[in-house]
Amino acid sequence: MVNIIHRIGIRSGSEKVYKAISTIEGVSNWWTEEVEGDDKAEGKIQFTFRTDTGNIKGQMLMEVKELNPQQRVRWHCVEGPDEWIGTDVTFDLSEQDNQTILIFGHRNWREAVEFTSHCSMKWAVFLLTLRDYVETGKGKPSPNDIKIDNWN
Amino acid sequence: MVNIIHRIGIRSGSEKVYKAISTIEGVSNWWTEEVEGDDKAEGKIQFTFRTDTGNIKGQMLMEVKELNPQQRVRWHCVEGPDEWIGTDVTFDLSEQDNQTILIFGHRNWREAVEFTSHCSMKWAVFLLTLRDYVETGKGKPSPNDIKIDNWN
Repeated sequence: MVNIIHRIGIRSGSEKVYKAISTIEGVSNWWTEEVEGDDKAEGKIQFTFRTDTGNIKGQMLMEVKELNPQQRVRWHCVEGPDEWIGTDVTFDLSEQDNQTILIFGHRNWREAVEFTSHCSMKWAVFLLTLRDYVETGKGKPSPNDIKIDNWN
Repeated sequence: MVNIIHRIGIRSGSEKVYKAISTIEGVSNWWTEEVEGDDKAEGKIQFTFRTDTGNIKGQMLMEVKELNPQQRVRWHCVEGPDEWIGTDVTFDLSEQDNQTILIFGHRNWREAVEFTSHCSMKWAVFLLTLRDYVETGKGKPSPNDIKIDNWN
C-alpha cells in the first residue's frame, strides 16, 4: 500500500485545529466550500469540487471512522475517484513547542500512480491553507484553491 | 522502499525549469542560497542550511547521477541526515498544456519515519518556490524559506 504523509505545525491549540478537521463548517473553510452530510461518528460527508463554470470535477463521499477529540480523525473513502475508493484520510494531532503538530495521511492507495503525486502536492497546498484558516480565520478552499498543475 | 513524489506544473518552457534544477545558480534560487561544488555529471554538490544565527542545521552532499537536458535530473545523497544517505532526488520533466510538468521524487527511504513526512511537506513548499522562481524570477530559498513546523 502507498501512503501520502505530510507533517505541518499550526500556531494554535489542538482544540481549534480539531474543530477545523472534524466539522463540516471547519472543513468547508480550507478544503472545499461545498461540504454536506453528517460529521458525527459513522456519518458520511460529501465533498464536491467544481470547475470555474460550475461543473462538478470531483466528488468524494467519506465515512467518518474515528473521532478522538484533539487527537485523531479518520475518514474512509467510499465513493470518489477510482484510485481513492478504499483509501483512508487521517489527521493525527499533538501539541509541541506551542504548536499543534498535524500528521496528515492519505493512506492505503493500491499503487503509486501519477494522480497520487498530484494529490500529494495538492494536499500539501490544502494543509497550508488549513494552517492559514486556523491561524488567521481565512483559508482558500476550492473553488478558490491554489492550482498546482494542468489537472487542478 | 518509501518514496515522496509530488507533481507540479510550471508556466514556462522546460529549458528554463531544467536550468533551475540542474545548475548551482538555479538551485540556489529556490532550495538553499548556500550551494557549492560541481554540477556536472558525476560531480558532487553540497547544500547547506543554516539557522537564523548562522549555525549549520543541515548539510547534504549529492552526487549528480543523471543529467538529461529538459528531461531528467537525478542526485544520489552520499552525506547528510542519516535517513537521507542512499536516497535519490529525481526531477522528471515533460511539457503539457503550455506548462512544464515536474514529477519530483525523493526516493528510496529505508522506512517511513516522522522526518519523512516533515520532508514531504517541506519539499512541497520548496516546489512552490521553485515555481515562483521560474515564473517570476523570485524564489524563497533557505534561510528565507517558509517554515512549516517546529522542526523547520
